Amino acid sequence: MTGVQQEGDDQSVSLYLLKQKMADFAKERNWDQFHSPRNLLLAMVGEVGELSEIFQWKGEVPKGLPDWKEDEKVHLGEELSDVLLYLVRLSDICGIDLGKAALRKVELNAIKYPASKNYGTNDDGTAEMCG
Amino acid sequence: MTGVQQEGDDQSVSLYLLKQKMADFAKERNWDQFHSPRNLLLAMVGEVGELSEIFQWKGEVPKGLPDWKEDEKVHLGEELSDVLLYLVRLSDICGIDLGKAALRKVELNAIKYPASKNYGTNDDGTAEMCG
Amino acid sequence: MTGVQQEGDDQSVSLYLLKQKMADFAKERNWDQFHSPRNLLLAMVGEVGELSEIFQWKGEVPKGLPDWKEDEKVHLGEELSDVLLYLVRLSDICGIDLGKAALRKVELNAIKYPASKNYGTNDDGTAEMCG
Amino acid sequence: MTGVQQEGDDQSVSLYLLKQKMADFAKERNWDQFHSPRNLLLAMVGEVGELSEIFQWKGEVPKGLPDWKEDEKVHLGEELSDVLLYLVRLSDICGIDLGKAALRKVELNAIKYPASKNYGTNDDGTAEMCG
Repeated sequence: MTGVQQEGDDQSVSLYLLKQKMADFAKERNWDQFHSPRNLLLAMVGEVGELSEIFQWKGEVPKGLPDWKEDEKVHLGEELSDVLLYLVRLSDICGIDLGKAALRKVELNAIKYPASKNYGTNDDGTAEMCG
Repeated sequence: MTGVQQEGDDQSVSLYLLKQKMADFAKERNWDQFHSPRNLLLAMVGEVGELSEIFQWKGEVPKGLPDWKEDEKVHLGEELSDVLLYLVRLSDICGIDLGKAALRKVELNAIKYPASKNYGTNDDGTAEMCG
Repeated sequence: MTGVQQEGDDQSVSLYLLKQKMADFAKERNWDQFHSPRNLLLAMVGEVGELSEIFQWKGEVPKGLPDWKEDEKVHLGEELSDVLLYLVRLSDICGIDLGKAALRKVELNAIKYPASKNYGTNDDGTAEMCG
Repeated sequence: MTGVQQEGDDQSVSLYLLKQKMADFAKERNWDQFHSPRNLLLAMVGEVGELSEIFQWKGEVPKGLPDWKEDEKVHLGEELSDVLLYLVRLSDICGIDLGKAALRKVELNAIKYPASKNYGTNDDGTAEMCG
């Protein structure tokens, strides 16, 4: 049902768990002093840059990355995680419940883009998912 | 213990749940055709831009956003969610278990930055959390 | 000789001219107060997001954008310009001579990637231009 | 008159000159094959990430960077240049005259934000320069 189903996906990892881990991590290293909203935002932009570098010279890449070596996929997982971890931390520092906000946003998107409408016949921008 | 503890955080929202919701959402709208890795990456970069716009003219912003109006916080939650939803979808389409990868990355970071070391006295770059 | 040669390219537009125009523009509107380095950087990230949105659902796009409508190209020119104008302004506010820095960087790149070496036969990352 | 006036700014560096240099650079290294619009866009996003990393843990930074070491400023100049060079190359590959487009955008901005209006008294978003 999903794009590229993974056998044995770890279904238990919640945003709340990651939030707690990041908070403990920062506290144990005396890093709360550095974790202001805009510091974390810029750190996240830095990680988005590293993620983009992985894809920059590859031209179009098929789903599931069939031709990628295992170490490239591991590296990709690390960069995706870096973006996620800073995003989770930024949300926490801003006092936003990211899990709750994400569920709400999916519902808003469902209202904005009703499932009954046929988007597939139109190819100019109607694929937008998160307006 | 966390940065800005939220009473009643929704602890149940997992990355797996969001992945499933995004996959169903795309399928019901015939959008799988648009969801290639680089399309989703660029869409995520677009959302990172919208998130940055919220913070762009504000100068330094204190933790917890004490002076922000409620509708600004709601808007922030939406933009944080947009980045998250595309990140989750990108990971799925690439065949990466994002939850598992994130837990692993936290462990790698803990090895790279031992908790016993005192980072607070050094102010040039040692606050880096996700190398 | 260039990628997609434009008949009648405006050869006179210098980074110095744009810097002056942006400085005058800000001064006339009392905007110097908002133009701190990190405010401008985040504003630039916002514009990079808008630029990415233009390309996000298009899949691979051929050089010269042969199938794009005229108004899409005009829009693209505006978003490219927005990134440039904030980049020029950010450099000015940081006290960096962007034109001089760019010429120096091209020279450094030429040393890093000697022209005599044949990069074309290698397809994994050797196309990097700005290390 | 400018933000941080530089004695001896190199006034001669035009966008056209940089475009030519980048085109020659790519041609001499057989890199035209890699320089598709979306490859260059992602490469630019990568450089924006590196630029952001310079600012990420610094909190607010005053104009002119008075406390930065010389080598930090040199590094900053390199990252600003990397963004610029890819932006120039991307514009060329898309067939956009970036200098002309930038001059036009400044004029559009002047119409959108008339100089006679007093923006300084309003602090919520009116500092936007490149809508």
